[in-house]
Amino acid sequence: MDRIRIALIGYGNVGQAFARMLKRREDYIKETFGLEPVITAISTGRHGGITNANGLDTKNLTYDMFDKDLKAMDVIDFGEYDVMCELTPINIMTGQPATDHIRRALELKKHVITANKGPIAWHYRELRDLAKKQGVQLCYEATVMDGVPVYNMAQETLKGCKITEIKGILNATTNFILTEMEKGISYEDAIEEGRRQGFVEADPSMDLDGWDASAKLTALMNVLMDETITPMDIDRIGISGITKEDLDKAAAEGKKIKLLCHGYLKDGKAIGEVKPTLVDKNDMAAIMDATMSYVTVNTDLMGEVTVVEHAFEPEIDHTAYGVLSDLLRILTNTR
Amino acid sequence: MDRIRIALIGYGNVGQAFARMLKRREDYIKETFGLEPVITAISTGRHGGITNANGLDTKNLTYDMFDKDLKAMDVIDFGEYDVMCELTPINIMTGQPATDHIRRALELKKHVITANKGPIAWHYRELRDLAKKQGVQLCYEATVMDGVPVYNMAQETLKGCKITEIKGILNATTNFILTEMEKGISYEDAIEEGRRQGFVEADPSMDLDGWDASAKLTALMNVLMDETITPMDIDRIGISGITKEDLDKAAAEGKKIKLLCHGYLKDGKAIGEVKPTLVDKNDMAAIMDATMSYVTVNTDLMGEVTVVEHAFEPEIDHTAYGVLSDLLRILTNTR
Repeated sequence: MDRIRIALIGYGNVGQAFARMLKRREDYIKETFGLEPVITAISTGRHGGITNANGLDTKNLTYDMFDKDLKAMDVIDFGEYDVMCELTPINIMTGQPATDHIRRALELKKHVITANKGPIAWHYRELRDLAKKQGVQLCYEATVMDGVPVYNMAQETLKGCKITEIKGILNATTNFILTEMEKGISYEDAIEEGRRQGFVEADPSMDLDGWDASAKLTALMNVLMDETITPMDIDRIGISGITKEDLDKAAAEGKKIKLLCHGYLKDGKAIGEVKPTLVDKNDMAAIMDATMSYVTVNTDLMGEVTVVEHAFEPEIDHTAYGVLSDLLRILTNTR
Repeated sequence: MDRIRIALIGYGNVGQAFARMLKRREDYIKETFGLEPVITAISTGRHGGITNANGLDTKNLTYDMFDKDLKAMDVIDFGEYDVMCELTPINIMTGQPATDHIRRALELKKHVITANKGPIAWHYRELRDLAKKQGVQLCYEATVMDGVPVYNMAQETLKGCKITEIKGILNATTNFILTEMEKGISYEDAIEEGRRQGFVEADPSMDLDGWDASAKLTALMNVLMDETITPMDIDRIGISGITKEDLDKAAAEGKKIKLLCHGYLKDGKAIGEVKPTLVDKNDMAAIMDATMSYVTVNTDLMGEVTVVEHAFEPEIDHTAYGVLSDLLRILTNTR
């Protein structure tokens, strides 16, 4: 049986969850596509890399088997693989080094899947055009709302529709903190509780200041509305200025405050906003607690269509599924 | 330029809206697929049929141009077309004559698109297998939630996931009446107001008794969960027994009553239920007014994913888009 060889650049929680899920769907992939999926190269941030053209036994992998001197770019250059998965931690302000990883893999005519939103927020059009020129595919479903089909819904199932507007709640950390604060918990205590539950990172400033949501909105607008903006172009206000009094005042009016993302066109120019926003209690946004997220796209032929993720963070398996669904998309399109 | 020839069996609001939308996306189809879409045959319920292998000018069509004696089956048998669109009115209790139309077209090796849910609720597996045997495609996106991608989301974008449960609100009429009754309007007056606004049909019994929702739930379960049930198998209770007191009591508990559809497995057996159900105010179902509908699928790899339609009925254009999206899917798959 022919094989589909996969390189994982980045091997944290998502990479490891993906390796497990790939094993779980190995028979499905063999039956559906006549291909045996094998992971032939892995690069980690701190432990170096490992390659084996025959396939790595990820279940029994230990870090002492890794070559400490093997860097990500070495694995990309010299690994034997068909699909590269970019799973390294994001740098929201630059999109690097993930963008360099993807660019190199595309130059080598490898298909690329990225769960890292940085490259799609900062360099989507360049990478899209490079993939097209090289005759390979670039997939990025896991970059927004984990494995929930946002890009695919718009591109595969709303064919022929023009997307004119995007709305949504895309950041779990801020959504968790606002929900906790509604219950009367202080901003600081909510952050602490979020850390305990795994919603909030050690340094949550990228989330609290709206950068994470801005990068996701940028990625969506670049892909679905064919724009060429960066996260710097988003009109961005975080949640640090929101007080218990603000939330109480909203509640008294039968409303809530949510960190909404909104992308639209004004006089032909793309406007992106990430801002704490007053929403009505019957609004889609109002029922989104920290376990949920949503995106609504407005289209010319179908009006508004919304997709909702349940059990948002820290469901690492949902991100892994996003990577798997991209792999299945690549296999479908190249069959 | 090669052509894609389309037969419309049924030419009411949806068929006419589809013809207009097809014209609107004619250039897109030419550019994307290198094919000129033409409607070459139309069958109506009362005015007979018309065929023209060179393409019909639907914009300037009048009923006096139709052949009164040309029946649907004649058009299917003798029309020159590649894709048959089944757009006749539904008979929920039998799925006929739509099922016979589809069977015949498939036997003639034509691709089939149906906006009529009857055949999918009653005879999905037979028709699916026949289409496969004949090497043609059978599409049915418009049968549930108009053109919102329900089937396509599950089949195209949640690849590799097993669907274990389906929930949703699928009938606008009952949702409208319950919403009106919450405002204090009587059951009878709500029906009358619904008629005025176009939500409620002249004889609304199929909606009020839950048959329409049952047929949709059946179609979803047959396609997405690979079941072989009929609408008769659904445990069905309509909304005629719901009183203002029931709604007030629910409201006093911070809840609402909605006509929920629920399909799931119990000891390996498929259970389908359509029943007035008490839902929490923060539940997805609670925010669905008559302009909205939703389906939530529960999957093994991605947990729950929800898709929401806004501006539900009487948005005839959304149904027309469902037919168009199926046409684009057929063109994509046969390119």
